[in-house]
Amino acid sequence: MSFVIGLDYGTNSCRAVVVCCDDGVEIGTGVYGYPSGDEGILLDQSDVYLARQHPGDYLRGAEKAIKLALNESKACKDFQAEKVVGIGIDSTGSSPLPVNSLNQALGMSSEFEGNLSAQCWLWKDHTSHEEAATITDLARTHRPHFVAKCGNVYSSEWWWSKIWHCLKVDQRVFDSAYSWVELCDWVPSVLAGIEDPKLVKRSVCAAGHKALYSDEWGGLPDKEFLEMLDPRLAELRDRLYEKAYDASQTAGYLCSAWAKKLGLNVGIPISMGLFDVHFGAVGCGIQEGTLVKVIGTSTCDCAIVKADKAVEDIPGICGKVLGSILPGYYGIEAGQSAVGDIFKWWVETVCQGDATLHREMTEDVESMSPGESGLMALDWNNGNRTVLVDQRLTGALIGQTLHTTRSEIYRALVEATAFGARMILERIEEYGVKVERIVCAGGIAEKNAMLMQIYADVTGREVCVSQSSQTCALGAAVGAAVIAGVYPDFSTAQEAMTRVTERAYTPDQQNHETYTRLFGIYRDLHDGFGKRGGAGDLYAVMKDLITIKEEISK
Amino acid sequence: MSFVIGLDYGTNSCRAVVVCCDDGVEIGTGVYGYPSGDEGILLDQSDVYLARQHPGDYLRGAEKAIKLALNESKACKDFQAEKVVGIGIDSTGSSPLPVNSLNQALGMSSEFEGNLSAQCWLWKDHTSHEEAATITDLARTHRPHFVAKCGNVYSSEWWWSKIWHCLKVDQRVFDSAYSWVELCDWVPSVLAGIEDPKLVKRSVCAAGHKALYSDEWGGLPDKEFLEMLDPRLAELRDRLYEKAYDASQTAGYLCSAWAKKLGLNVGIPISMGLFDVHFGAVGCGIQEGTLVKVIGTSTCDCAIVKADKAVEDIPGICGKVLGSILPGYYGIEAGQSAVGDIFKWWVETVCQGDATLHREMTEDVESMSPGESGLMALDWNNGNRTVLVDQRLTGALIGQTLHTTRSEIYRALVEATAFGARMILERIEEYGVKVERIVCAGGIAEKNAMLMQIYADVTGREVCVSQSSQTCALGAAVGAAVIAGVYPDFSTAQEAMTRVTERAYTPDQQNHETYTRLFGIYRDLHDGFGKRGGAGDLYAVMKDLITIKEEISK
Repeated sequence: MSFVIGLDYGTNSCRAVVVCCDDGVEIGTGVYGYPSGDEGILLDQSDVYLARQHPGDYLRGAEKAIKLALNESKACKDFQAEKVVGIGIDSTGSSPLPVNSLNQALGMSSEFEGNLSAQCWLWKDHTSHEEAATITDLARTHRPHFVAKCGNVYSSEWWWSKIWHCLKVDQRVFDSAYSWVELCDWVPSVLAGIEDPKLVKRSVCAAGHKALYSDEWGGLPDKEFLEMLDPRLAELRDRLYEKAYDASQTAGYLCSAWAKKLGLNVGIPISMGLFDVHFGAVGCGIQEGTLVKVIGTSTCDCAIVKADKAVEDIPGICGKVLGSILPGYYGIEAGQSAVGDIFKWWVETVCQGDATLHREMTEDVESMSPGESGLMALDWNNGNRTVLVDQRLTGALIGQTLHTTRSEIYRALVEATAFGARMILERIEEYGVKVERIVCAGGIAEKNAMLMQIYADVTGREVCVSQSSQTCALGAAVGAAVIAGVYPDFSTAQEAMTRVTERAYTPDQQNHETYTRLFGIYRDLHDGFGKRGGAGDLYAVMKDLITIKEEISK
Repeated sequence: MSFVIGLDYGTNSCRAVVVCCDDGVEIGTGVYGYPSGDEGILLDQSDVYLARQHPGDYLRGAEKAIKLALNESKACKDFQAEKVVGIGIDSTGSSPLPVNSLNQALGMSSEFEGNLSAQCWLWKDHTSHEEAATITDLARTHRPHFVAKCGNVYSSEWWWSKIWHCLKVDQRVFDSAYSWVELCDWVPSVLAGIEDPKLVKRSVCAAGHKALYSDEWGGLPDKEFLEMLDPRLAELRDRLYEKAYDASQTAGYLCSAWAKKLGLNVGIPISMGLFDVHFGAVGCGIQEGTLVKVIGTSTCDCAIVKADKAVEDIPGICGKVLGSILPGYYGIEAGQSAVGDIFKWWVETVCQGDATLHREMTEDVESMSPGESGLMALDWNNGNRTVLVDQRLTGALIGQTLHTTRSEIYRALVEATAFGARMILERIEEYGVKVERIVCAGGIAEKNAMLMQIYADVTGREVCVSQSSQTCALGAAVGAAVIAGVYPDFSTAQEAMTRVTERAYTPDQQNHETYTRLFGIYRDLHDGFGKRGGAGDLYAVMKDLITIKEEISK
């Protein structure tokens, strides 16, 4: 009997789980909240877009969380620390940090103590929005294939935007950085004792989705393109990497210092670091025909397609990268900018309620039928991440009368997120990515049966919920089991180690039909407000909503 | 020193005021809540559209309210009941009731006790929506000029729809009715002791706005047209009236029975009955260049244009009737289907607050600037009465983010009603009805300075508030003073008897400019959702709102 560790770096804390390789049971968990800044995030009063993290928190987090998880695991009689055969790691991203020539984080050096530019640039740092816009423009003009794989828009959240912005605002940090490393690549390299940034193995998940890396054009963007941004970025390219790797590879082996610190065997393999959602998809048992949705404040959607299938680039989809989820498959990444955040906004900000009101409204909503309220909302309170890829979009609510209740609006918002999900689903299917069932993970999926049923009814697909509530860490553990040779491949490992709950949500056919009519209205509004010249005649929108409402009320 | 009485029939009660002819001061008031039904309204559990009233309530109301007002007036040392020189009357409408050949209300007879069809059909009774649709269709095809004066749509709230519906659902009542009378015509005739329906003088206000009456085509609709509806309606025409009169005429003179009952002089003149809002406009001092807005749950807007000016019919305006407000002027009537009702919906139904929350939000809103929230709403929660004339329209809210507050939405709703007001104003000005200033009446206008300022800023006009909080009754009193000969004409009487408060709201030029940009967006949404094929490209809507928001926040 052997065990693996999954180590998951979230936005406010990191979490380690000890997982039994036989059956995927999580026998021990340890969580470490980052002590620096505001819930782990370094902020700047003068710039709301800034969000950084102290790299030291990550290393202390690895130690503390793993030790806590190992300690809890002792309750399992079959467990001993010597039986841990591998470590899998995932993190948020794109979260790049500058390192010196010894692969040490600049942010941890005394020289740069308190310097925000020298810290890790957290995924949700948006200080680089101007750089992102310029990269988008230059790429569309000179290298359209670069952005074709990421919905034709390069984001301020991503690698090159951030590094370029650092170069502009803090040249001393830029000059002192020998190289830059994604968080998900850096932690494995530190645990493996790698002291040369050029030897840090980079994951294709981060590289392909966020750094414009592709084997199709020889790795990172060519120097000519980077020179258009800044010649010093072109120079930096030589100190980055030539090749990125999928999860079939090993990032390194646990070095003696860290083995001692953690009480684990020296030399156990460490997985390539993936972004959290991608290992989360693995933890949800992703396979061809499965759409994985991790539903939280926002959603991340993942699907895979076998590498030998010719799949076009999909317009409006955040990413399509070979090997970013499972080796040998294209990973498709999409997402909705706000889901749980919209419900939270409605219940807490507008209705000024708390968890009790969330529950009450959920109960109210359960007795309603599709179309009964006459309402239609757009789920764009935080912009649109997938299909339209436009942050300058906002929410909309149509159809309210003098009798509309807060609970009806709550349901309309839930439905809006479901229609947004269907929009993504239809888009990827249109480009040959088949979706037979949906597996959801995250607190909302686990707790909110009403929402899950609406998602099933709107999409017309069976919707399941992941058994594990720590799918990212579990997926990382699956990755560890594979590279440790416990299983010959991911498919076998997933089969053994991941599962969904017994309760599957199957679509109600009548509801699905009503929702398909309503989805037509959603699409009209989506295109009307979201596409240049995309407006059809919206005259029918309010009338059709009333007609459907009247039919349902009969 | 002489006095007049204004008697105003509202939806739930009637109100009498005793007014001093010299200065318009209201020295005594009496209010009588109708005792029948639910707050005076007879309802039918099986039909939400039904709303009737017991005619007996009106007569008891006249007696009780006038007596209370006279009693209160005794505190004024100059007052004696013998100094009352006339009575003016207004009521809701179109509120027709069936009468027998003695001008007695069928609803008051023992034969029809409890029969809902025999009662007064209150203005907000919508049981006749099918009849209204048919009348609209037939008129558009065969008599387009009939509906050209009422926005091309004949309403279920109006005279012919209701009488036709009665014929269909309760032929015994229809057959027993010698004639039908509008409430505002019936009360004056009863007080004047008129016992023959053919001698009841009909007001052109009710006839012109609601019964398709016009001197242009010889009075009521021709029999051929009515035959298309039902031959029995054509027969009824003979027992209705040939001619309708404006407020320069006298409906009759107080009969001895009523004079005794009320303690007033026999033979004092009784005004023609006008609809409440039209006498309300008189009470607000309406003249050419003034738009009167009575702001309550909904609004009624009135303007006048001298009869010798050739004014086209105005598309989408509820009515344009010669003499409906002041003799010698066209009365223009428009309105918004919901104003106060929308704020009430937001605060009470959605936010589940009370008067305190109304106040709190009003205070919050006062510190905000136009465009700051990035929101835009449509004021159609109860349909659109003027310009689009479409009940099958609903509310809309665009531009919400995860940070949008309930108070910002409250302000957006207030602004939406102001934009709706500007839409009406621009429409009537486009057709030659000049608006130099706006006089508002009603509780909201009196109490909500924030709203009044927004109306001034949005419309770019000075906005005043009527001094009287009982403008309808006051206007009726003005009418009484004119027919009693106290003043030679309405203009002189209004000058002496009506006034606005000292506080006038003048537009802030910068706010007005921002609102004019925002109004362009309102108009795009208005046309996009409200007109067939009217949608321009709405792609810019959300982006423009964000741009304005960003500019304002700088």
